[in-house]
Amino acid sequence: MDVRMVICGLGRVGQAFMGLLIQKEKDLQKRYGLNLKATAAVDIGGAAISPEGLPLEDLLSHLKKGGQVENMARYGKKGFSGKEALSSGLADLLVEATPTNIKDGEPGMTHIRTAFSNGLHVVTAAKGPLVLRYSELKASAEKAKVRLMISAATAAALPTLDVGLSCLAGTEVLAAEGILNGTTNYILTRMYEDGCPYGEALAEAQKMGVAEPDPSLDVEGRDTANKILLIANEVFQAGLFLRDISVEGITRVTPEDIERAKKERKVIKLIGKVEKKNGKIVASVSPMALPLDHPLACVRGTEKAISYLTDTMDRVTVSGGKSNPQGAAAAILKDIIQIYKG
Amino acid sequence: MDVRMVICGLGRVGQAFMGLLIQKEKDLQKRYGLNLKATAAVDIGGAAISPEGLPLEDLLSHLKKGGQVENMARYGKKGFSGKEALSSGLADLLVEATPTNIKDGEPGMTHIRTAFSNGLHVVTAAKGPLVLRYSELKASAEKAKVRLMISAATAAALPTLDVGLSCLAGTEVLAAEGILNGTTNYILTRMYEDGCPYGEALAEAQKMGVAEPDPSLDVEGRDTANKILLIANEVFQAGLFLRDISVEGITRVTPEDIERAKKERKVIKLIGKVEKKNGKIVASVSPMALPLDHPLACVRGTEKAISYLTDTMDRVTVSGGKSNPQGAAAAILKDIIQIYKG
Repeated sequence: MDVRMVICGLGRVGQAFMGLLIQKEKDLQKRYGLNLKATAAVDIGGAAISPEGLPLEDLLSHLKKGGQVENMARYGKKGFSGKEALSSGLADLLVEATPTNIKDGEPGMTHIRTAFSNGLHVVTAAKGPLVLRYSELKASAEKAKVRLMISAATAAALPTLDVGLSCLAGTEVLAAEGILNGTTNYILTRMYEDGCPYGEALAEAQKMGVAEPDPSLDVEGRDTANKILLIANEVFQAGLFLRDISVEGITRVTPEDIERAKKERKVIKLIGKVEKKNGKIVASVSPMALPLDHPLACVRGTEKAISYLTDTMDRVTVSGGKSNPQGAAAAILKDIIQIYKG
Repeated sequence: MDVRMVICGLGRVGQAFMGLLIQKEKDLQKRYGLNLKATAAVDIGGAAISPEGLPLEDLLSHLKKGGQVENMARYGKKGFSGKEALSSGLADLLVEATPTNIKDGEPGMTHIRTAFSNGLHVVTAAKGPLVLRYSELKASAEKAKVRLMISAATAAALPTLDVGLSCLAGTEVLAAEGILNGTTNYILTRMYEDGCPYGEALAEAQKMGVAEPDPSLDVEGRDTANKILLIANEVFQAGLFLRDISVEGITRVTPEDIERAKKERKVIKLIGKVEKKNGKIVASVSPMALPLDHPLACVRGTEKAISYLTDTMDRVTVSGGKSNPQGAAAAILKDIIQIYKG
């Protein structure tokens, strides 16, 4: 089966995804019968277009040399936008890999809406549109009878949603608790295992590239909040907005807090949580002291995990999964396979 | 959508499954549009039959009072066999819950073959037929264009196969390592944490009902071998037989082994393993000393887990899931939902 894709956003995730398409081309045909072709690749200044499928190796090497996509020989088209690409009958599916923008969700929001109004499936790594307007977008996908796949936006290669929806099908999920941010888990692990204070652990994480120069999205718990919001809406059909979630990050966790937890045979983790409380679905983000035998207690360093509590299968916990752009690209590819595996 | 089922085997798993059907009836209709009806329930001496669907509450209470299914008022039919039930156009799907028989796979083998030759899907908790003739049965299912679902035979509510096949779609799975038997993990945990010798830990496990009076299937590693064989064949398409797997249980693990591992900051676990070695797929079962930061190292007590190593998503580990008959029943239900979710 031929699948024609528009790829929007050619940064680290978009490029990793193109690399993966090259690496996996034969395997995808053999194992899944899928022939994935990028008919358009779009970035801020324009696009490269080919109804027969772009030569991805050439495009990648052009980009890696610092070239802009719109200047690619033969295929480049200056000023050609994602909206145009998605409206021109070029594709069956949108891969949305533009940067996450939590203010107005653009340009992802426009891309996703345009994809739906043209009958395209959407696989997105961008969290912005989902965090801002999950219910609207989900309803649009259903109306257009296409799929909206968001694995890459919800902890990427860690299969948070697959486990919550598919592996636990038929159960009632009572609660979900996740360590959904690698940066903060790394900092807390260093504080717990080596006794360093918060500032020192953060500085080290920044030096290693584990934390951003501006770490606020991570350490203030907002990245975790974005992910737990999407998990609440997908797995629990909660219909929540970001404003419904109480969020506390790790900036106020002290060495004394860590020591106190240790004495009680506990460990402090930044937990994104969704639970059913008196018939309502409540989500929150906060540092929590977990008993050492809690399945999330031994999730160390930059590792992520999510633990679901169910009525008929008890507790199921999944951990790991690459969390760099390659991991996000692998999650996008998995979502595409799941759309077409029938 | 109406789904008519023949349930073969009315022991603990079969009864738990019927209980689950009663409990989840409304939820299955609402969430998945499924109306699951048991048109036949078969045990060793006969069956109960109703083309409109058996009254499961009545049947369960009859069985729980010690009644035989063939003596159930109105619906009972003495001597009516699984083979007859599966050949009489009564059903779309077989739920196979007869005891695991590793000698010749019967009666499950006959049931599954009959189901396929009549165009029925099969969801099985019985390992025997799969362990003995996986490739043949898989080929028969494909030929009949029906599904063979085996979650309940491969660690039940722990989603070993869902994660290996669906959550990791598009990756190359390089290796799988599992703690797949709760009894042996309980014994090894007691030996590690409390320093008890093997015999004492086993006796305690037997007293608690965690180990069988004859524990050999578990402690000799054969139960783990059965499960890792099925995982090798489903996830790695290995085409292996039981005789291809080297199996060592935990009966020779001594307190000295445990102490030596502890000194090296390791913990001994009974690991079922599949890996690609020089282009070949090799499976084995043996006690292994894992470093304390290995994701399986903190899987304690009767808990089970499996860890997959992949090329593009790194390592993904899943743990937990109820492992009693209720967990197996929940895994059967999940498999049925996955067949029909489209």
